[in-house]
Amino acid sequence: MIKQSYVPFRRVMERGDLVRVAGVHSALGGLLAGEAGFDAVWASSFEISAARGLPDASLLTMTEYLEAAANIQKAIPVPVVADCDTGFGNSMNVAHMVHEYERAGITAICIEDKLFPKINSFAVAEQTLLDMDAFAHKIATAKAAQSTPGFYVIARTEALISGLGVDEAVRRCRAYAQAGADAVLVHSKAGTNAEIRRFLEEWDDLCPVVIVPTTYPDWHADDIAKAGVSVVIYANQGLRATVESLRSTFRSIREQGSSAHLERRIVPVQEIFTLQRLQEWQEINA
Amino acid sequence: MIKQSYVPFRRVMERGDLVRVAGVHSALGGLLAGEAGFDAVWASSFEISAARGLPDASLLTMTEYLEAAANIQKAIPVPVVADCDTGFGNSMNVAHMVHEYERAGITAICIEDKLFPKINSFAVAEQTLLDMDAFAHKIATAKAAQSTPGFYVIARTEALISGLGVDEAVRRCRAYAQAGADAVLVHSKAGTNAEIRRFLEEWDDLCPVVIVPTTYPDWHADDIAKAGVSVVIYANQGLRATVESLRSTFRSIREQGSSAHLERRIVPVQEIFTLQRLQEWQEINA
Amino acid sequence: MIKQSYVPFRRVMERGDLVRVAGVHSALGGLLAGEAGFDAVWASSFEISAARGLPDASLLTMTEYLEAAANIQKAIPVPVVADCDTGFGNSMNVAHMVHEYERAGITAICIEDKLFPKINSFAVAEQTLLDMDAFAHKIATAKAAQSTPGFYVIARTEALISGLGVDEAVRRCRAYAQAGADAVLVHSKAGTNAEIRRFLEEWDDLCPVVIVPTTYPDWHADDIAKAGVSVVIYANQGLRATVESLRSTFRSIREQGSSAHLERRIVPVQEIFTLQRLQEWQEINA
Amino acid sequence: MIKQSYVPFRRVMERGDLVRVAGVHSALGGLLAGEAGFDAVWASSFEISAARGLPDASLLTMTEYLEAAANIQKAIPVPVVADCDTGFGNSMNVAHMVHEYERAGITAICIEDKLFPKINSFAVAEQTLLDMDAFAHKIATAKAAQSTPGFYVIARTEALISGLGVDEAVRRCRAYAQAGADAVLVHSKAGTNAEIRRFLEEWDDLCPVVIVPTTYPDWHADDIAKAGVSVVIYANQGLRATVESLRSTFRSIREQGSSAHLERRIVPVQEIFTLQRLQEWQEINA
Repeated sequence: MIKQSYVPFRRVMERGDLVRVAGVHSALGGLLAGEAGFDAVWASSFEISAARGLPDASLLTMTEYLEAAANIQKAIPVPVVADCDTGFGNSMNVAHMVHEYERAGITAICIEDKLFPKINSFAVAEQTLLDMDAFAHKIATAKAAQSTPGFYVIARTEALISGLGVDEAVRRCRAYAQAGADAVLVHSKAGTNAEIRRFLEEWDDLCPVVIVPTTYPDWHADDIAKAGVSVVIYANQGLRATVESLRSTFRSIREQGSSAHLERRIVPVQEIFTLQRLQEWQEINA
Repeated sequence: MIKQSYVPFRRVMERGDLVRVAGVHSALGGLLAGEAGFDAVWASSFEISAARGLPDASLLTMTEYLEAAANIQKAIPVPVVADCDTGFGNSMNVAHMVHEYERAGITAICIEDKLFPKINSFAVAEQTLLDMDAFAHKIATAKAAQSTPGFYVIARTEALISGLGVDEAVRRCRAYAQAGADAVLVHSKAGTNAEIRRFLEEWDDLCPVVIVPTTYPDWHADDIAKAGVSVVIYANQGLRATVESLRSTFRSIREQGSSAHLERRIVPVQEIFTLQRLQEWQEINA
Repeated sequence: MIKQSYVPFRRVMERGDLVRVAGVHSALGGLLAGEAGFDAVWASSFEISAARGLPDASLLTMTEYLEAAANIQKAIPVPVVADCDTGFGNSMNVAHMVHEYERAGITAICIEDKLFPKINSFAVAEQTLLDMDAFAHKIATAKAAQSTPGFYVIARTEALISGLGVDEAVRRCRAYAQAGADAVLVHSKAGTNAEIRRFLEEWDDLCPVVIVPTTYPDWHADDIAKAGVSVVIYANQGLRATVESLRSTFRSIREQGSSAHLERRIVPVQEIFTLQRLQEWQEINA
Repeated sequence: MIKQSYVPFRRVMERGDLVRVAGVHSALGGLLAGEAGFDAVWASSFEISAARGLPDASLLTMTEYLEAAANIQKAIPVPVVADCDTGFGNSMNVAHMVHEYERAGITAICIEDKLFPKINSFAVAEQTLLDMDAFAHKIATAKAAQSTPGFYVIARTEALISGLGVDEAVRRCRAYAQAGADAVLVHSKAGTNAEIRRFLEEWDDLCPVVIVPTTYPDWHADDIAKAGVSVVIYANQGLRATVESLRSTFRSIREQGSSAHLERRIVPVQEIFTLQRLQEWQEINA
């Protein structure tokens, strides 16, 4: 009988190895990330909003991000880490968010110290940060609001994105760790890993560090681990590959006048059935 | 200013050319299908359930299929044709379905003459059909329940899928057309277009014919049009390409230890911003 | 700090007293039922569909019934028993339903042996029952699909509603209990409790019995308990009182030309704030 | 055949009489308000959040408020005016909100000049207003984003709630009208209508005025009309009556040990069937 079960994110963190996480926006992406050996998936706001044809700018609501995250978690055995932007408002919103995400079976969330409504970190836009103490209060609120002991809260600083420098990033991450954050995510849009490495040198190991090497993709996982990082998120490569693939698929059907030429380059329908566990489901009615 | 607008499906049908439709499960897929020149998109139950990691077996509800279809339509200028399976129950359900889809801005739906709960037409399973008159009643109900004159109802017969033969398919399609169907979809899982061609020879042109050449993909669109087909749906190639692409993307990141090698094979983040119309959105706040 | 927590339904059953349950369709109703001393609430399909202005005829989907039930459970400390109609299809649908309801935090569900789509038991309509073994298979499937040991499955027979008599009701309830049902609900639309009493006399106590005395409301709870019933559901009185109250409230505002005359008959805004726990919520931001 | 249709709010405004609006949180409430002769219903954030057991403090999301409003509109012939709080963020959020509400069939929305996240106007809390020009920009954005000419945007000022006085309320409403607002709502929590009357004396009739006489309920509709008000919203009396009614209903069942004593005070089940239009629905299958 098909049952739903998955490992909570805290359990994955306890293994001690570098935790590798893939960004996804659907259960299907989650299944394929798990199949490839990823330890967890990142329910990315950027991916989820792009899948809806909307910018990553707090236009979709918590309800929609949560629905996306929960729909992924229902289908996969590895845990979802939910990208929760700013926490969707003030500390009251953060408390409500924790109630909702926990109830939906999400075991890890991440909130960041930008203002609501936020805009994507790679956008050409001024990024104003929330006051450090106000964000630390959000973190403390999140931890106080959780009802399961294992619920995992990641505090993300956008200090480097905002050009405030490594010292400010460290200062903020310290405050967030002291407020109870289970881990800190330090985001960078630099073309190299230099500022992240400086952060790691200054970091006093109050809690694990998470990175997202979108703009410095040539840092090897083994070296990332050696540098003291605990979690690496490949946040949007799946989406970017999907766009490439759908674009060329649709174009070629239009240009060729049929899909015959694609048959060997795309998986057969039977393969989709396998991902859907069709046979196991059908056995229920047998 | 960004506004939402799109062409109703009936308007597309009035153009007179072969209408080419691509199966999608997200707004992003819809945007890329439109970009490639497709005239409409098929909000496919098979794709939508696969994206959720579930079989195409009436497990997702009308609410979920409608939400998916509506989210696609909100983002794209070409019309969505919503795959509505069996109509989600009896004639009362069909009336309610029409109210809900129309209200959500969907301009075309398709229902089929299988029993609820259905199972995917390509699955290894016995397919029992609903009595012809009962399904004709569903079609008449759908047409009577619509409140906008342009709403477009496609009646799909699974007579060929069930092995009942071309004559039964024709007999059923006639009854459905007489009940008010705006078009008929005759589905086949044969490895060639032979039975569809026989259907077309016998068909008396009571209304347009729609086909889905998944298992006979080598039929060129020009020949499809010449044979008398009005609409061709490439129902699941996008999904099958996406699985191939995500699988290889995720595997290679795990195996290579970084995503650096992918950078030239996947679209840049900026390309996603363009699809999201980020700059136009940002101008609203300027 | 506000946290979400509630007692699972199985725990309530273990207390041994008659379990009193009130039908509701909103969290507000749930809060007031709990306040009045009810042990659990019934997320009633009849109430939920009426609140939407739709008949209780499988028009709303599992998604919508689940959302209603989950939204109630999030807000209240007593457990929700979710009215799940027929299980929304066949045994595959039942398995999926159990996955979805469990994941959403619901600890008890009830399914009945009518055909999908169903119609309300008090409607003037022929009620055809599902074959007994097929329904027993649904019950066995539900129990096999659950992933938490405490999940509670109530099997409801409509044998009396369908005019099949007490013997058939007993025969069916036996089969359902043997298939693993945690309790049986025997529904009656008779104007007295006579047929329910005959059922109880014949019942061999394989599991607890649940009743819904809508049409025989004069049976006192103490007597219900003495007769061997474990759970009594007052399924729709709240809805019927709400209609009476809203109707007279709205009419009198229109007729009187103001709401001044109502001020002493309706609760003050402050009372709503108390139900919303506004002050506790505001303290989060303090 | 049951069809969905309703009058757009602009059409109601064109009648020229005082428009009377009742606050509701469900389709059932909407049906009963329409039955009593109200011209429109107010999909109240206060009521909708109370029905969920949550404070009226931007905890529920746009998705949830929209779903509630749309579910009401689907069931009733009079238009819904959707209470949209602050517009759920900045001007980008307002544009997105207009797209979503219009697409869902809502013909009138109201946004207010408080900061997101907001708190209910009657709560003991400091209320900071958004800068006037920034809110006027939101109004202009809403009007520019609409795609149907009739869509109706009400600008609500909380100047009186914030203690800024009548002059500031007038100044703001002027700016909002000049930015394109179809009407202004001036809210007051004073125990008399004095400040509203002063507002009306100073108001230069740039657009219609809406009031919500919750705290000054003894102002008769005829006098409200004579004073120059175009729309009066009885925003929460239905909710407050419902709480009173459910509380006494549930308590009395617990205390009396049965629901027999209620039978004459609550509507019969048949009356619910009538509201659900059960018979008309059943005729579809006949």
